[in-house]
Amino acid sequence: MASENNAVDHRVRADDAVHSAWDNELEPVCTVEPGDVVRFECRDATNGQLGPDATVADLATLDIDPIHPLTGPIAVEGARPGDVLQVDLLEIDHDGWGCTLVLPGEMELGLLAEEFPEPALHVWDLEDGIAHFVDGIEIPIDPFPGVVGVAPAEGGAHSTFPPRSVGGNMDIKQLTAGSTLSLPVAVDGGLFSIGDGHAAQGDGEVCGTGIEAPLSITCRFDVRSGRSIDGPQFETTGPFTSTGRDERMYGTTGIADDLMDASRMAIRHMIDHLHDERGLTRTEAYMLCSVAVDLKPNQIVNDPNWTVSAYLPEHIFPASHRR
Amino acid sequence: MASENNAVDHRVRADDAVHSAWDNELEPVCTVEPGDVVRFECRDATNGQLGPDATVADLATLDIDPIHPLTGPIAVEGARPGDVLQVDLLEIDHDGWGCTLVLPGEMELGLLAEEFPEPALHVWDLEDGIAHFVDGIEIPIDPFPGVVGVAPAEGGAHSTFPPRSVGGNMDIKQLTAGSTLSLPVAVDGGLFSIGDGHAAQGDGEVCGTGIEAPLSITCRFDVRSGRSIDGPQFETTGPFTSTGRDERMYGTTGIADDLMDASRMAIRHMIDHLHDERGLTRTEAYMLCSVAVDLKPNQIVNDPNWTVSAYLPEHIFPASHRR
Repeated sequence: MASENNAVDHRVRADDAVHSAWDNELEPVCTVEPGDVVRFECRDATNGQLGPDATVADLATLDIDPIHPLTGPIAVEGARPGDVLQVDLLEIDHDGWGCTLVLPGEMELGLLAEEFPEPALHVWDLEDGIAHFVDGIEIPIDPFPGVVGVAPAEGGAHSTFPPRSVGGNMDIKQLTAGSTLSLPVAVDGGLFSIGDGHAAQGDGEVCGTGIEAPLSITCRFDVRSGRSIDGPQFETTGPFTSTGRDERMYGTTGIADDLMDASRMAIRHMIDHLHDERGLTRTEAYMLCSVAVDLKPNQIVNDPNWTVSAYLPEHIFPASHRR
Repeated sequence: MASENNAVDHRVRADDAVHSAWDNELEPVCTVEPGDVVRFECRDATNGQLGPDATVADLATLDIDPIHPLTGPIAVEGARPGDVLQVDLLEIDHDGWGCTLVLPGEMELGLLAEEFPEPALHVWDLEDGIAHFVDGIEIPIDPFPGVVGVAPAEGGAHSTFPPRSVGGNMDIKQLTAGSTLSLPVAVDGGLFSIGDGHAAQGDGEVCGTGIEAPLSITCRFDVRSGRSIDGPQFETTGPFTSTGRDERMYGTTGIADDLMDASRMAIRHMIDHLHDERGLTRTEAYMLCSVAVDLKPNQIVNDPNWTVSAYLPEHIFPASHRR
């Protein structure tokens, strides 16, 4: 799958560099110069506990401690607190497979965790650049790192689950190859790590996972010291419709006085729609929402009720099944 | 501006039909058959208090009582509580102008009302199908009704500001010509009204107004009695990038444990970016966010911090000013 057109100055292997917490006392696996290109080998979010042959039975014994296995940290020469670390995402390659999990129980992962108490798994074949779901549904893929960031200023080990002002588990699906991420440096050298590859994801990632996939990611690093930012900023190659162009969508709404409630309502209505009118099981519908349905806040100013809608792209269905 | 290819069965003039509250005891201005096509004349949100020559001084005496002037209601023969009213939005035409307002004070309108205490106004010329802002910034337009819905089951007069499960002030910018809206009927005849035209809007409508514009809107009505929905659903012609295709965006993030806080943070960072790096005043930046910047929740499952980003399309800037 790999195509390497960029001259790589450093290669970081997962075996040498996996860690599962943010900690500014971690020893960098290497120190790079501004302008250097680094190729990171990133394991899937389960740290290799699941593979292309995994079944839902494997979820019963899944150890969540290694989640997320991040590759790094690397230090960037000259990066100081208050600087901006610029990360050009040059190339992102997958390994031909991925998986989407519903993980209730201990993790309570997902927007509707209480409504989906059973574990579920879908293993995706990505070999032809398309992710295949049930009933002929095809999701275009464009891989990106779910977790990307630098070490926080605060000492100690910090969970990789919540994102922070220094980045981390942001799950911004537009951070694909060709995009540029700016991160606020909090400690000397920055201490950059990356991982939690997703081959595709809907805005919201509602079941708690995208198409989780091992990735190889090539980045170029630069340090900008004349500019200060309070949180991550980025330049994308597009706002990202699944096919790279405008296309028909089916939308459901949530209208409520709380944005999280409105989001849950929009997703519940979409799950109803996918179940009642498109023939999916409710669990399949929940997973499909997590990898291919985009949430949008339509308005958050018409006090006291906000509108949030969920958008289902029609083109993922076989032509005969589109509305 | 009008082009009328659809045979119109009924025309509803604003002079005969403007009302500023939802009320299921309003007398319908007409009763139409399923399949009928109706052309609605809709005033701008200020009910004609502002026009193409308005200035910010006019905001001091703006009467907010007539907001929103809706055109309707019309009754649809055979629509009963529990049915779905299907509304095909066939044609939407503007009058050549629109305006964007920052209205603090009594209304406290807007996501950052406390940070923008001064009223502001931008009047847009829409004649060539493009909305022109400061510094050569051009916003493509695709008009839609900000308010569209049916009468609620509960008696009495209800404010038009918050949307409800029967629709209303949803501000879904994808409800442009070619889309189809399904509304849950709550009272006999449905009692459909429409108005609050927007020539363009960003997802979020953060300063509280889009490009507010008088519109003429042609709809076809149908009643579906075999199907029940809990809230509005819709089919769009696209997910709506401003140019109808994928394009480069600049993104800012908000990372917080509350979706509204994260949204505010993303917009504050975007206003900083537009001010510091693109040379706009902060008020111009706030208005531009409201009409052309899209909010997206990237993930709402990585407890306890969510990611919301604001997306600025590069193409709205003159070629020489794009990043």
